[in-house]
Amino acid sequence: ADIEKGKQKALICGSCHGKDGVGIAENIPNLAGQKETYLALQLLAFRDGFRKNMQMTPMAKGLTDEDIQNIAAFYASLPAKK
Amino acid sequence: ADIEKGKQKALICGSCHGKDGVGIAENIPNLAGQKETYLALQLLAFRDGFRKNMQMTPMAKGLTDEDIQNIAAFYASLPAKK
Repeated sequence: ADIEKGKQKALICGSCHGKDGVGIAENIPNLAGQKETYLALQLLAFRDGFRKNMQMTPMAKGLTDEDIQNIAAFYASLPAKK
Repeated sequence: ADIEKGKQKALICGSCHGKDGVGIAENIPNLAGQKETYLALQLLAFRDGFRKNMQMTPMAKGLTDEDIQNIAAFYASLPAKK
């Protein structure tokens, strides 16, 4: 996966998940240092409807498989933080 | 919430999510230092069927609301780690 491309693609995600991957509110998960495969599986689930969330479903809609791998690799690469 | 009670209740969770809240496999999320409310919302979703997962659905089944708050407080209290 391409972490740099993931970082670019994740610019929009930062508005809720934080620039450093720490959620901006108590109900928004921290993504920094999370497991790469787990993150990718959740984005796939949101995109393909296996997991539903009002904010995430539209966010994941247009993502390609490559986008998903890059975004997951980007957040997994960040130091774990809360 | 009672972190100590949460720790006791979460002993079984440790077999997959790790004693220190770091998932034992790439598809198992780290819970250490995650947002408390987010964690509680996910346990509620797994218990009440809004979110489905083969491993988590049976795990969340018997939890009371108090168990859920305590477990969420316990994992949120751990230092973020990967």
